[in-house]
Amino acid sequence: MASPNALTSQSEDFPRWYQDVVAKAEMADNGPVRGTMVIRPYGYALWERIQAEMDARIKAAGAQNAYFPLFIPQSYFAREAEHIEGFSPELAVVTYAGGEELNEPVVVRPTSETVIGEFMAKWIQSYRDLPLLLNQWANVVRWELRPRLFLRSSEFLWQEGHTAHVSYEDAAAYAMRIHLEVYYDFLVNVMAVPAYVGIKSPRERFAGAINTLTCEGMMRDGKALQMTTSHELGQNFARAFNVVFQSEAGQSELCHTTSWGASTRLVGGLIVAHGDGAVGVVPPRMAPSQAVSIAVRDEPAVLEACASIDAALRGGGIATSVDRGRGSFGRRVTDWEIKGVPLRVEVGPRDLANGAVTVVRRDDGSKHLVALDQLAARATELLEQMQIALLEDARTRRDAATADVTSVDEAIEAAQTGFARIAWDLVGDAGEARMNDLAVSVRCIQRADGTTPDSPGEADLVAIVAKSY
Amino acid sequence: MASPNALTSQSEDFPRWYQDVVAKAEMADNGPVRGTMVIRPYGYALWERIQAEMDARIKAAGAQNAYFPLFIPQSYFAREAEHIEGFSPELAVVTYAGGEELNEPVVVRPTSETVIGEFMAKWIQSYRDLPLLLNQWANVVRWELRPRLFLRSSEFLWQEGHTAHVSYEDAAAYAMRIHLEVYYDFLVNVMAVPAYVGIKSPRERFAGAINTLTCEGMMRDGKALQMTTSHELGQNFARAFNVVFQSEAGQSELCHTTSWGASTRLVGGLIVAHGDGAVGVVPPRMAPSQAVSIAVRDEPAVLEACASIDAALRGGGIATSVDRGRGSFGRRVTDWEIKGVPLRVEVGPRDLANGAVTVVRRDDGSKHLVALDQLAARATELLEQMQIALLEDARTRRDAATADVTSVDEAIEAAQTGFARIAWDLVGDAGEARMNDLAVSVRCIQRADGTTPDSPGEADLVAIVAKSY
Repeated sequence: MASPNALTSQSEDFPRWYQDVVAKAEMADNGPVRGTMVIRPYGYALWERIQAEMDARIKAAGAQNAYFPLFIPQSYFAREAEHIEGFSPELAVVTYAGGEELNEPVVVRPTSETVIGEFMAKWIQSYRDLPLLLNQWANVVRWELRPRLFLRSSEFLWQEGHTAHVSYEDAAAYAMRIHLEVYYDFLVNVMAVPAYVGIKSPRERFAGAINTLTCEGMMRDGKALQMTTSHELGQNFARAFNVVFQSEAGQSELCHTTSWGASTRLVGGLIVAHGDGAVGVVPPRMAPSQAVSIAVRDEPAVLEACASIDAALRGGGIATSVDRGRGSFGRRVTDWEIKGVPLRVEVGPRDLANGAVTVVRRDDGSKHLVALDQLAARATELLEQMQIALLEDARTRRDAATADVTSVDEAIEAAQTGFARIAWDLVGDAGEARMNDLAVSVRCIQRADGTTPDSPGEADLVAIVAKSY
Repeated sequence: MASPNALTSQSEDFPRWYQDVVAKAEMADNGPVRGTMVIRPYGYALWERIQAEMDARIKAAGAQNAYFPLFIPQSYFAREAEHIEGFSPELAVVTYAGGEELNEPVVVRPTSETVIGEFMAKWIQSYRDLPLLLNQWANVVRWELRPRLFLRSSEFLWQEGHTAHVSYEDAAAYAMRIHLEVYYDFLVNVMAVPAYVGIKSPRERFAGAINTLTCEGMMRDGKALQMTTSHELGQNFARAFNVVFQSEAGQSELCHTTSWGASTRLVGGLIVAHGDGAVGVVPPRMAPSQAVSIAVRDEPAVLEACASIDAALRGGGIATSVDRGRGSFGRRVTDWEIKGVPLRVEVGPRDLANGAVTVVRRDDGSKHLVALDQLAARATELLEQMQIALLEDARTRRDAATADVTSVDEAIEAAQTGFARIAWDLVGDAGEARMNDLAVSVRCIQRADGTTPDSPGEADLVAIVAKSY
């Protein structure tokens, strides 16, 4: 029926499988300039789902959207020493514009702490203006030497939140709120990725941060993908850009700021977290199309049935597509499988004669003969079951591939095929350096119960160690 | 009560009034790099409303969103001769990235016909792949020597649609559909701007187009603002990028393409189309906040009433804000007036004792004493009336300021204070050049009944002539 031979299997060659799925599902192409990408409609529809879910959570956390310029004066970067050091090698610089050479070259933003710091300084006068909670949806550029569609690209799309607060405690609490209520909630409940949460080791922190909170997903090849980060910036950027406020007591004080982001990398993460065999799997709550009605043949009666089935599904609140039955049925089934559409509704004359259709779940391939008058209700049930099953499966895989170890050598060994969990005290700076030399890293540091600590100085922390994207 | 003295009046100094409203309504600031802008939360919320309304219309017209790279190889621009000539003076160029000088400089996109042409050529094989209907939401850069927030900025946000078709007729019909069903419908029915529609004269066309459809709004200073354009590109870009398809008859043929866009300029257009006296006016269907409940005083009973009034309005499907009553009432009223929020609900102890509140319409200042239990219903009515009134007022102003004239000299004269309508045959290329020398231009060419012609060659067309932004 299907011709899966054309597709590389995941177990055979994981990177090649990824590339095949992205290409054959028509998600993205490489752009003409090294490291850039073209996001095709299906890939972009996945990003639109991520945007919609994230944007609602960000607004619920009180942040407002705004937009800051793409171009940042080069001099801004120099004002925060760690920041410029961290980003210099990745910057793209405009030296020529409007027909002449620029007096001061401008940087294409790799992130916007600097320019937003400059404007926070203008807008904030007193404690009454705080917290100032901003977010922007934008493109950023970080020159990549080893690009990979979605996972690592020279230009990517993201949201970046930037906030200013009266105190360290307020800023830390807000960064934690974003980490848990926006990011972790989205990853677990929409993307069905049971991420490990925690903080970065000092070595892995964002350039200019005093603490970085992270959600690390485990991909199906046992590697980690850093999915979201939330940074406590302390007073570093406030000092560099003079972001001060008059306190209730009438003193002039520096603000405490945060920044936090998630990007189109998540589209790649979706594929490597759930894809199986030779094809893709999209969790129902993420899916631009949750069910596709596939006409077995291009015949008027079948197409009419497809149209009314589609209307019934939409009426039940399900996002749908219709496949009008041109060309080989097997080939079309494979195409929808590669895209990972959760439910396939096969509409053929035989089942229709019995007032039924066959519904196939993408994740486990289970087939369900469903009476037409119960279709929307049954499809809703199957979607909900699939959403839960994907999260459970991912959690089971993650736990099975996480080894508790008691030495850095064992951690490095375990990281060849999965994750290692090791007491943070046993790692130390030298241990972390040794791991890094072997392309293994501390992905996050967490409490023994898996929750996110406030700082790496807490007692009894564990490190999650892995290879990563 | 209010202190309007601080604000420049529109009639006094229109450009200064515009600048004041944008600044005092906290819509936008100038960015640090010449011509760029920072869009603040209120300005961005207006843009989000535009995006939501446009995006729904674009999807209803069958186009899918995608995303193409910010960086375009310089060589792409050279492939379409008129295009490179039109855009060269405005390009920003990256010459340095990732720590080294680039072999080929890359252009920061001023528009994406070239890179999208390149990918259409890859994706289109046969007539079955057509029409290909794409849209992207993105930032673009066109270096501006005389920038003005929203109306003319070096970086702006926009949507750009790009489509490919089997024939000239298909492409032309689709460009017309976007022009009418997406743009004109949005402008009239949401933004309450009764735009003049028509086509551009050959001299005013987009660089590389064979025909450009345009919606031209009349602003309150009698100038025209080009609000949206839709271009028939013929086979110009298809030829430059080899966008070919195999026809039903088995022949290899060049596609016919279109492109069309609308930008953050519309946020500026909103202000200059409706703002009056010293302040802003936002049509209800555009407003991020349609009604603000203003506590007359910061007292528990008043604040409680505000909260329940806000809940009642939201329950009625109205977008709301609450003003918690800190500081001078008059000052707060002015702040909301500058933002142009359609309805102001004044919540004070005296009215509350009578089970009522005073509702004030932003456009005509009319005051309405409304019983609390009828508030949501009455507010909905007032919003609908205001939406209609704003469109009617704008139409009346437009018609009153449009003079029918019979010579180029009269047209130039009329354009000093408003619009002129003149038979297109009476203008001619020399007449148009003479207007242009005096900063007057043909904004659009339309049929005598005000509809959009298919080409400037139709008989009995009229030209709408004005000064413009």
